Amino acid sequence: MTHAPIDPVALTAALIRCPSVTPVEGGALELLARVLGEAGFACTRVDRNGVPNLFARWGAKGARSFGFNGHTDVVPVGDVAAWSRDPFGAEIAEGQIWGRGASDMKSGVAAFVAAAVDFVRETPPEGAVILTITGDEEGPGRDGTRALLDWMAAEGEAMSVCLVGEPTCPERMGEMMKIGRRGSMTFYIEAEGVQGHAAYPHRAKNPLHALTRLLGEMTAAPLDQGTAHFEPSSLQITTIDCANPANNVIPARATATVNIRFNDAHSGAGLVAWGEGLAARIEAETGVRLTLRSEISGESFVTPPGAFVALVAAAVEAETGLRPELSTTGGTSDARFVKDHCPVLEFGLVGQTMHKVDERVEIAHIHQLKAIYARALRAFFA
Amino acid sequence: MTHAPIDPVALTAALIRCPSVTPVEGGALELLARVLGEAGFACTRVDRNGVPNLFARWGAKGARSFGFNGHTDVVPVGDVAAWSRDPFGAEIAEGQIWGRGASDMKSGVAAFVAAAVDFVRETPPEGAVILTITGDEEGPGRDGTRALLDWMAAEGEAMSVCLVGEPTCPERMGEMMKIGRRGSMTFYIEAEGVQGHAAYPHRAKNPLHALTRLLGEMTAAPLDQGTAHFEPSSLQITTIDCANPANNVIPARATATVNIRFNDAHSGAGLVAWGEGLAARIEAETGVRLTLRSEISGESFVTPPGAFVALVAAAVEAETGLRPELSTTGGTSDARFVKDHCPVLEFGLVGQTMHKVDERVEIAHIHQLKAIYARALRAFFA
Repeated sequence: MTHAPIDPVALTAALIRCPSVTPVEGGALELLARVLGEAGFACTRVDRNGVPNLFARWGAKGARSFGFNGHTDVVPVGDVAAWSRDPFGAEIAEGQIWGRGASDMKSGVAAFVAAAVDFVRETPPEGAVILTITGDEEGPGRDGTRALLDWMAAEGEAMSVCLVGEPTCPERMGEMMKIGRRGSMTFYIEAEGVQGHAAYPHRAKNPLHALTRLLGEMTAAPLDQGTAHFEPSSLQITTIDCANPANNVIPARATATVNIRFNDAHSGAGLVAWGEGLAARIEAETGVRLTLRSEISGESFVTPPGAFVALVAAAVEAETGLRPELSTTGGTSDARFVKDHCPVLEFGLVGQTMHKVDERVEIAHIHQLKAIYARALRAFFA
Repeated sequence: MTHAPIDPVALTAALIRCPSVTPVEGGALELLARVLGEAGFACTRVDRNGVPNLFARWGAKGARSFGFNGHTDVVPVGDVAAWSRDPFGAEIAEGQIWGRGASDMKSGVAAFVAAAVDFVRETPPEGAVILTITGDEEGPGRDGTRALLDWMAAEGEAMSVCLVGEPTCPERMGEMMKIGRRGSMTFYIEAEGVQGHAAYPHRAKNPLHALTRLLGEMTAAPLDQGTAHFEPSSLQITTIDCANPANNVIPARATATVNIRFNDAHSGAGLVAWGEGLAARIEAETGVRLTLRSEISGESFVTPPGAFVALVAAAVEAETGLRPELSTTGGTSDARFVKDHCPVLEFGLVGQTMHKVDERVEIAHIHQLKAIYARALRAFFA
């Protein structure tokens, strides 16, 4: 029995019509499980705390395997009236498919599902193809890909490598893949001084002066100049607050928040120690109590150039004519969880409209993306 | 006809019983006009925009004159339940008189009214004694002593010198008089950048970084080391606000307020130029728009040591045994208006409880204060 190739645009459209606003399943994972099941994938729902997740494997458990990771949940549509087209309508117009998730990342999921199904049907490999698809990447992310990886560890399931299908191209299809990500951490700073009259500063201790000094020292010089695979780390003060309405009063207390996106020249713990060291010195010098609460969202990671990177990059170049930049820029993705499981890369569509009104993507790019994933599969198992 | 000397403590008590919470007259100026009128003072109410003020002159218009200035309005009592005694009861206990205005400054007004009345009755001088008493020193101060001085200028009335009866002694009666005051000005700063994602700082312009730099430069070094009659100028950041709740967002806008108490090494205009110069440079370097709105509350002023200062200091020393420090510290008073009219000094009671719950003052000090004012009058007309 022969099967027609799966049309990744039609599958994208079907997924867009599932209203899977995070963390609602919306029929998206059910649809995929049906398509994959028909092609011989063993599908298991790995839901945790109400979050829907799908694990699908073709081939033997424990075999050398190529993995894909993605998500079917989408961010809310926001102001529906601001959309030119129905955000769940999946209309095709102007050579593009429109709707929430068109770019981030129902098209990416559709492309790797289509590539994987066609591949195992046409040229059944020696090994396994594993798909890990979550319904909570846009939400807290506690029970999404992490739940899948926890379940896989418990069940003895493993991916040898993993390609995440998130949109990675800033403007042109094929121009960028992600080989890692910076780490992210946040300082929540509280400065407690002694209130007083602005005319008698020697009787007060101004928390804003100590805070300004601390923030000034934190921002005085770049954290680094970048490393082999990373751009320079970046520190941003995201808020300072005091809410003192009286211009003749020195306030007692002020707060600030500082977010750091750091490369592999740093660790979260090292930055915490750095911040606390600065604060301790300024506290000693000013008498203003400086308390730092630190929150490390993720450490930096990188899958250094090697066989897996070369394989995916070659597939991208063959289909797009562009040699993709090996980037570690941008926000976080579930690759930060996968990296503890196996080498992980990210390649996907142009992300310009993701999370925006009128999210859409070129339908030609979806076909290209399926072809790239198919090439990667063939090359991996060749 | 002979008159008994006026008891300044009884007069203080009568004034405290007038509930003259700013800007309410409360019967206080009416009471004083009656006492002064009986002693031959020509009294004129110089009310403006609903603010009550009293001008009183003994002697000929245009004659060489000794002036006093003070106010009968008081700040609100706050939490009445927190007071040990009725804030308008004027109870005498533990050697003190208790109530709102006991220290600031119904006692001071009572002392100079008592001294002036006794003086003109006992030893009528060649010249004039002028009292300028307002009902709005604790409020906005726009229609208080300023209204009196405006009216005097229009009427050809003038004080040759003026002694303000505000409390000036930090702890011990007689230890300090004020010969001037620092100026005061405020910068209201707005920083406008470009909002963005904390992971992509190159696409944003962080207003908090520009603001931190500006405030850092403003506080990096003292404005000066003090001058002959002044302690060093003081700059205080009184608030910084942004109210950005998202630690992954670079905010678009932030504000800060900076208050400066400056000595005679500076002028308000000079400080405005300094602040705007710093802001313009940092704006040029960062691309963040920095807007400064400046408010000059008052320039610094000083009545340098000379005959008038020596006369008052000698009176203080004769009655208290203490040589008063010639200070320019502390907050503002109506002396900042009088200084454009004639040489002005301030001497009064211990101010420890002013504006506080259980405001009170030693009754012995009120007698001392009347005696000091009487000595000053005698010496001036000797």
